[in-house]
Amino acid sequence: MAVRQAELEIPAHTHEDQHKHEKLVIIAWSGDLDKVWPQMILATTGAAMGMPTTIFFTFWGLFSVVKDQVRITGENWMQKMMTVLDRPGMEHLKLGKMNFGGAGPAMMKHLGKQHGVASPNELLEIARELGVRLVPCQMTMDLLGLQPEDMIDGLEEPAGATSMLLEAQDAVTLFI
Amino acid sequence: MAVRQAELEIPAHTHEDQHKHEKLVIIAWSGDLDKVWPQMILATTGAAMGMPTTIFFTFWGLFSVVKDQVRITGENWMQKMMTVLDRPGMEHLKLGKMNFGGAGPAMMKHLGKQHGVASPNELLEIARELGVRLVPCQMTMDLLGLQPEDMIDGLEEPAGATSMLLEAQDAVTLFI
Amino acid sequence: MAVRQAELEIPAHTHEDQHKHEKLVIIAWSGDLDKVWPQMILATTGAAMGMPTTIFFTFWGLFSVVKDQVRITGENWMQKMMTVLDRPGMEHLKLGKMNFGGAGPAMMKHLGKQHGVASPNELLEIARELGVRLVPCQMTMDLLGLQPEDMIDGLEEPAGATSMLLEAQDAVTLFI
Repeated sequence: MAVRQAELEIPAHTHEDQHKHEKLVIIAWSGDLDKVWPQMILATTGAAMGMPTTIFFTFWGLFSVVKDQVRITGENWMQKMMTVLDRPGMEHLKLGKMNFGGAGPAMMKHLGKQHGVASPNELLEIARELGVRLVPCQMTMDLLGLQPEDMIDGLEEPAGATSMLLEAQDAVTLFI
Repeated sequence: MAVRQAELEIPAHTHEDQHKHEKLVIIAWSGDLDKVWPQMILATTGAAMGMPTTIFFTFWGLFSVVKDQVRITGENWMQKMMTVLDRPGMEHLKLGKMNFGGAGPAMMKHLGKQHGVASPNELLEIARELGVRLVPCQMTMDLLGLQPEDMIDGLEEPAGATSMLLEAQDAVTLFI
Repeated sequence: MAVRQAELEIPAHTHEDQHKHEKLVIIAWSGDLDKVWPQMILATTGAAMGMPTTIFFTFWGLFSVVKDQVRITGENWMQKMMTVLDRPGMEHLKLGKMNFGGAGPAMMKHLGKQHGVASPNELLEIARELGVRLVPCQMTMDLLGLQPEDMIDGLEEPAGATSMLLEAQDAVTLFI
């Protein structure tokens, strides 16, 4: 996997350097491709720099960590409708603007590939390897009727706003 | 009011704990239901944890703290048009996506009710009770021609970006 | 230039005050007028308060610092299409909602002028004068095929996520 970001941007760091760095907490609220990309780029870059990094997936952002093969979820028609309208899974991300029925995201992914920028899915894999904590929001899972087996592997236990705000103490915290 | 968030997530804390917590500053920029909800959930959770919490309502976010019965505001036709197109008041929030003429927000509120998640309006009430400082942006009030009597009760004096950035020093600061 | 923000809100400060203030780092992700405005208001206010301030322009936000006369950029049809669909340059900002083919932004700019709020372009000029560091994202420039000569004057060298996160240590950091 040729990941330009890892090759070009991340400086060598020593054990000492790591102690100078704050934590990084990303509240991944959006599930749009053009927001998921910065969520993943910042999380992997932070972790590679030695920042203890956590992504808290909530609201539409939770769809990024639902298995791609999960199509319809939930126990009642409203939950089903939410997930049909906005198909979960990292392979089905849309753009917040200029989506054009999928042509926009395809173009953007193609440009990324041309320029050696890893896809969100590759970055999620790298995040896991770098030890980024991936935490799904319990409340959103309940609202959408998602079960643990609907989620991708490697996630931590679902948690709530309190856990997130505790983690945010003395951290760089971004709502994306 | 059965508020699941308050029941399940907020840990008991002592006076000592409070001193470990940073301030929480939320810049409430958006007036969409799916952003107002996290604004309110995070603010009430933070305050309940002992974080001194401030919400600064600006741009579209200011509409959340305009009285529900205020329909048309402003002194000139442009200000009037802005508020007619995007009706102010917490009861009239729209979704950033999947609004469907109000069906989306209705579904989401219904799901919230089913799962014991308090509505934004209930959370705003809890925020006031927990001592969250609710600060409207003076510049936005001027731009929209809003008067103090158009706003809900319990707000602090309108303030500007300087006050907000002073409050943001050594705080967890989120732009939502 | 009658800049109300500078006149009314920014307190006098001494050298001592400056040392009490944290850095301010704004990740300018959006290129919509209603997001660019708070990016610029917060950056100029922070700088005027004595906060060492950096704006990191990335994704759609990068378009704010492309020359207004640059219309079509890039080496291939996909890059060209991205910039034709979303014309770069501070004079061509759209609203995230209620754009109405440009009528919304025109109204909002007019309201701003009526109330003595500086335009984004004026604020960018003030930001430069106040020493705000304006940093374009290298990856976004590559993806859109933008060259240094396409960008406005006064920018720093393009940089990546690592530089941004290093700057974010002990700073107030906002993703807008």
